[in-house]
Amino acid sequence: MKKFSPAISALIDALRVLPGVGQKTAQRMAFQLLDRQRDGAAHLAVALESALERVGRCNTCRTLSETPECPVCADPERASAGLLCIVESPADVIAVEQTGQFQGQYFVLMGRLSPLDGIGPADIGLDRLEERFQQGQVKEVILATNPTLEGDTTAHFIADMARRYQIQASRIAHGVPVGGELEYVDHTTLGHAFSGRKTVL
Amino acid sequence: MKKFSPAISALIDALRVLPGVGQKTAQRMAFQLLDRQRDGAAHLAVALESALERVGRCNTCRTLSETPECPVCADPERASAGLLCIVESPADVIAVEQTGQFQGQYFVLMGRLSPLDGIGPADIGLDRLEERFQQGQVKEVILATNPTLEGDTTAHFIADMARRYQIQASRIAHGVPVGGELEYVDHTTLGHAFSGRKTVL
Repeated sequence: MKKFSPAISALIDALRVLPGVGQKTAQRMAFQLLDRQRDGAAHLAVALESALERVGRCNTCRTLSETPECPVCADPERASAGLLCIVESPADVIAVEQTGQFQGQYFVLMGRLSPLDGIGPADIGLDRLEERFQQGQVKEVILATNPTLEGDTTAHFIADMARRYQIQASRIAHGVPVGGELEYVDHTTLGHAFSGRKTVL
Repeated sequence: MKKFSPAISALIDALRVLPGVGQKTAQRMAFQLLDRQRDGAAHLAVALESALERVGRCNTCRTLSETPECPVCADPERASAGLLCIVESPADVIAVEQTGQFQGQYFVLMGRLSPLDGIGPADIGLDRLEERFQQGQVKEVILATNPTLEGDTTAHFIADMARRYQIQASRIAHGVPVGGELEYVDHTTLGHAFSGRKTVL
């Protein structure tokens, strides 16, 4: 008995598909599920199957959606402004929605340009984004990709594309988080905060 | 669209059953599974169902097992020594097996005594352990519960029980880990290492 039994091994291997879960964590998860959380484990299996069956992508913005068009894209009022916010993931859509300050539409890249990982423009749907630019309803794109090297590169790439269609492109502001203390902010962020300073009126 | 759609919400909630997984991690897991790991997610659902169906507990030592008796308990050679190692979890059985130094049998508590959490002797199978003591085949118990307050309490409790049946009880040694540096060892462990010192022969 140097190893786990087949069904336990299979479960441990299957759990490793989860992000950030290695061998030890997967073992701990498997034991907890089989020992004390059997109802929860059965429920998880059902939820996985149900979500896989029902959740696809929005045909317009590519976010995860249970309908061919997600609720935001299906809302005619939100199309009227001609504002398109570009984000990396469906979680980012939720984050922007929670601010309550954006009334336009989204385009979800489901990733970012990353040539080293073989992720090019077509993999993040930029061909479909260009089609939308061609349709002429978009007046401004707000680039809300993450402030990482790859997120910045992606934002620049899309800004160049927007320029070819005379569409205004803006990048969300980066700086010291509200409530944060200067002392604990990393120097790149602080650099952004200085270069992006605004005149006090 | 301030919230996730029903199937995604249900999946996020279901993932929170995993140990150490909170709302944010569950969100990230759900999106990764639905976006890039759909095969892995389907595989995980099947592995969960299969493990739940096939894995139960060993009737003798309580460890997770696909057969009524786990391979260790079913091995007559391992019973002959009369050695019983008490551990908290099936993962601990694997850890001890990997040392290759123990040829006896195990008893898996599937927990530890924790009165504050309402976990008493019956919850960790001590009634069944006592039955084994009564049967008279056990000559020595090796207490390999974790060196935590609760693990130590559990070990003491079982040692007292063993004494009533004239069974020798020993506790595994605690001290400085092999390859560890004194400087980085916490003082409780170092205290154990000093009080458990051995004469150099």
